[in-house]
Amino acid sequence: MDKQSPEYLSHLRHSCAHLLAAAVMELYPKTHRTIGPAIENGFYFDFEFDQPISDDDLPKIEAKMREIMKSWKGFEKHELSADEAKEQYPGNVYKHELIDEFSEDGKKKITFYKSGEYWDLCKGGHVGHPERELKHFKLLSIAGAYWRGSEKNKMLTRIYGTCWPTKIELDEHLQRLEDAKLRDHKKLGKELDLFTFSDMVGKGLPLWSPKGATVRRELERFIVDEELKRGYLHVYTPDIARLDLYKKSGHYPYYKESMYAPIKIEEEEYMLRPMTCPHHFELYLSQPHSYKEMPMRFAELAKLYRFEQSGELSGLQRVRSFCLADAHIVCRKPQAEQEVNAVLDLIEYIAQVFGLEAGKDYHYRLSLGDRQDEVKYSKDDASWDFAEHALRNVLKNRKSHFVEAEKEAAFYGPKIDVQMKNVNGKEDTAFTVQYDFVMLKRFELSYINEEGRAEQPVVIHRSSIGAIERSMAFLIEHYAGAFPLWLSPVQVALVPISEHHHEYANKVKKQLEEKNIRIELYAEAESMQNRIRLAAGEKVPYILVMGDKEIEQNGVAVRQRGNVNLGVMGVEEFAVKAREEVEKKVIW
Amino acid sequence: MDKQSPEYLSHLRHSCAHLLAAAVMELYPKTHRTIGPAIENGFYFDFEFDQPISDDDLPKIEAKMREIMKSWKGFEKHELSADEAKEQYPGNVYKHELIDEFSEDGKKKITFYKSGEYWDLCKGGHVGHPERELKHFKLLSIAGAYWRGSEKNKMLTRIYGTCWPTKIELDEHLQRLEDAKLRDHKKLGKELDLFTFSDMVGKGLPLWSPKGATVRRELERFIVDEELKRGYLHVYTPDIARLDLYKKSGHYPYYKESMYAPIKIEEEEYMLRPMTCPHHFELYLSQPHSYKEMPMRFAELAKLYRFEQSGELSGLQRVRSFCLADAHIVCRKPQAEQEVNAVLDLIEYIAQVFGLEAGKDYHYRLSLGDRQDEVKYSKDDASWDFAEHALRNVLKNRKSHFVEAEKEAAFYGPKIDVQMKNVNGKEDTAFTVQYDFVMLKRFELSYINEEGRAEQPVVIHRSSIGAIERSMAFLIEHYAGAFPLWLSPVQVALVPISEHHHEYANKVKKQLEEKNIRIELYAEAESMQNRIRLAAGEKVPYILVMGDKEIEQNGVAVRQRGNVNLGVMGVEEFAVKAREEVEKKVIW
Repeated sequence: MDKQSPEYLSHLRHSCAHLLAAAVMELYPKTHRTIGPAIENGFYFDFEFDQPISDDDLPKIEAKMREIMKSWKGFEKHELSADEAKEQYPGNVYKHELIDEFSEDGKKKITFYKSGEYWDLCKGGHVGHPERELKHFKLLSIAGAYWRGSEKNKMLTRIYGTCWPTKIELDEHLQRLEDAKLRDHKKLGKELDLFTFSDMVGKGLPLWSPKGATVRRELERFIVDEELKRGYLHVYTPDIARLDLYKKSGHYPYYKESMYAPIKIEEEEYMLRPMTCPHHFELYLSQPHSYKEMPMRFAELAKLYRFEQSGELSGLQRVRSFCLADAHIVCRKPQAEQEVNAVLDLIEYIAQVFGLEAGKDYHYRLSLGDRQDEVKYSKDDASWDFAEHALRNVLKNRKSHFVEAEKEAAFYGPKIDVQMKNVNGKEDTAFTVQYDFVMLKRFELSYINEEGRAEQPVVIHRSSIGAIERSMAFLIEHYAGAFPLWLSPVQVALVPISEHHHEYANKVKKQLEEKNIRIELYAEAESMQNRIRLAAGEKVPYILVMGDKEIEQNGVAVRQRGNVNLGVMGVEEFAVKAREEVEKKVIW
Repeated sequence: MDKQSPEYLSHLRHSCAHLLAAAVMELYPKTHRTIGPAIENGFYFDFEFDQPISDDDLPKIEAKMREIMKSWKGFEKHELSADEAKEQYPGNVYKHELIDEFSEDGKKKITFYKSGEYWDLCKGGHVGHPERELKHFKLLSIAGAYWRGSEKNKMLTRIYGTCWPTKIELDEHLQRLEDAKLRDHKKLGKELDLFTFSDMVGKGLPLWSPKGATVRRELERFIVDEELKRGYLHVYTPDIARLDLYKKSGHYPYYKESMYAPIKIEEEEYMLRPMTCPHHFELYLSQPHSYKEMPMRFAELAKLYRFEQSGELSGLQRVRSFCLADAHIVCRKPQAEQEVNAVLDLIEYIAQVFGLEAGKDYHYRLSLGDRQDEVKYSKDDASWDFAEHALRNVLKNRKSHFVEAEKEAAFYGPKIDVQMKNVNGKEDTAFTVQYDFVMLKRFELSYINEEGRAEQPVVIHRSSIGAIERSMAFLIEHYAGAFPLWLSPVQVALVPISEHHHEYANKVKKQLEEKNIRIELYAEAESMQNRIRLAAGEKVPYILVMGDKEIEQNGVAVRQRGNVNLGVMGVEEFAVKAREEVEKKVIW
């Protein structure tokens, strides 16, 4: 088997999970084992320990794994009855539950796999020569995890590990993890004081500090201005609405679980909105429309609220309230393809501004429906065919590389997802373009055509920069906190060499602030070198040092981030350069 | 008595209310009268009619008032026992309720006043010669009103009227009302398609159409940019938070009635936030602070939610969710005066940008606490004295005219209110600057002073432009929908004379859009005159007409709003002029 194939890697890692469990059972014989699957880049195993363990115990377990591994010559398959199987796990309610399930309450045999002295209930999928192949592994961390992922169940102890075919690959992966740790947006968010959380305010509800808020404001203005240029109509609609609105849209049954409980106001039930579309449709309905107005591209920086379990929350990546750069394009059916195409133009433009490359940093996924599944997807075969064809066509005409994914569509139509990987290699849908042939009927959207008759439009749902919170998390990690000049909270640090130069520094500050450059003066009673180090630690793009020599020339000594010395420049000259780099959104 | 004095005007109008009731009782004898006070600029009287009446009935009632008035030579005072008084109002539960109350359940006599044949229970306060003085009145409108203002009581019919000492004053007032009707923001909001409401979304929750949203965006950016320039730290904090936060801040008992019901999330109760302060304090607490950072001016365009009865909702003026340009300045006690002064500088600057004049369009009110009222106001005499003195000092040093109002302070300290009158003459608090010596204790806010010890700051709460919704309502009415160029949703209308000129018009459009000027092309198959009329009706500041002559000169014929013909200008020349007027926020 190809040692780089996903199948081989999965077998390798699952085998390593067996090895982990074998070591744990030898060291902590009173432990109850549960399950240990392969995951992306590694594996985990969940245990119920009779004593608390910590990261400090991992080296000991790892050493035991290496010791055991030598005696594992292969994986032997055995079949046991349910009763025999249960005897292998005295008092282990988790395994007993699985055995009942897999044996269909005793009707079927259960497969076990044995390596050396260790065996375990398992469906199979292992390497042939564990003693040779299971060499390049490392245990990474310990976390809590509910049995079967449900918070109603007991919390177990999960041990994560990674395993690779070669030492080089393992080392590379560990290096990536180290890098990712340094880039972790939660860590950088704290270090650079970009955002914070408060127990009193509540979980999953970030508070953006002045510096993080500056980046967010720049992002938001950039996206709004760019959309306005491209003919979007930006609006503001309320963040709460009557429950009836989401019943009308048909979202309620599909989204109920993600919505928060209703708030009663004068006998009516109001919801924190989980999506913007019905709000934009109500706005559309406030006026009659003509074919001449089509397409109408309603856009909004919309605050949305979706329930996430507290255990799932993670920095800005998974939150309970987020701001989506959302839009709903109401257009005539023959305009749909060109509108979808224009959305992809916009998305690619934005990606390019952030320095992201198609294929490397993101790729397209065409998410399709399932004609058979009438519960999950609105029934209308002809419309599904038409819409799926239209989206596929756009991607083909653009010569964009894309994968197709069955059963990933929205209930109202197929969509193009822009998939991005974060620094940990986890893939997520960052932005989507969705074709909708359902909402227009539910809301009775129409416009008057050339013949004076009412005609139904189609609707395209799309996000351009996705959720601001999630995009911010992504960008912090992508840039490792070193934002391009235009996004940097502080763009220029001023470092006067001594107190004599404060007056001049203040003059320079004023001069640059007039050009809308964000300045911070580092004038504390500390050594100049310390102050430069401080500004560099805060990843300020430009550090301007000034002493007698610079004052004489009415200039500043310019250091670009990354310790690049640009020499002495006139203040005005520097201002022009910086302004131009901001306008052009230069990345260096 | 001085005929312009508030006392005389009140007597005049209350007398006129008697006259209204007299006429109603003659025309509709089965009516039950209730109360009829003087109000600002007029009076009303609430009745329970046995038949519905409408605006169409007002002329008849008015005619009857004029007829009766001639026989009214004065107001005679009488005293009746409670039982005698009740006999005057057979079956009238409202009057009987009042009589029980005023007579302290029969213990005291009740005063009545008689004019001509009419008499009524009344505490007094009338004119001496009704037949001469009650001449310049007009009935204005009919509305529903709950008995004693409580929605739990029966809905009565309220008739509004106005009355003045002279015909000139009456006519002027009626003209003002006519003007106000034309300026009504609800009417203009619809005509100019600025905002709308949807029953499906819910009451008091405006949806901002693209044009209204453009004005709002310009307003928001203006205020944020101006605040940033003045050293404010703009942040984003969540619109919901745990109920516990508002208990910690002490707001909950005071604001409970204005807050919406809690939402339960994983066993915790969350509230739609009614104010921003505790959110900003939690952000402050996320980092240690030094005296060198003081003052820290946390600002936010904060969405807030406060309950309003559906009957109280009115356009953008009274809504259930609004966006407040809010800020909380954390500073050292000796910095407080200069910070309050800087806030007033900002407020006056903004007012001046909008073309508002101190004294005419707004005035200051110093709202004080009440040392005796320990329920409503936090007990701390020394702090109240210090803070009230500080605020008064600022106003005095500015030589600002201000009135003082007892018992109008916030529970945590005194405040300066900026009072504005809307086009209907109704006065409202538009912005406030509040001194707070309570929150810092509840949140244990502190900073490290020069000696390395923790010291308590003070907090100044302020809004600069108030609630965006309410300010927008005010500005729509103030400008009668004709926004200054920088705020106008469409800044320039392009009117090509005929189809031959469309290509040129599109070229001009592109050229101006590159200068960030908001353009609309009026190129429908209608006469040029109609298209100009259309654009003028939409109050577009500049209409550029272009035909052969203009094309030849690479120019446009410029008409400024108000039908001012500026002649032919080069396109570039016009662009520069328009850009400059936008930058300078010129009002004409």
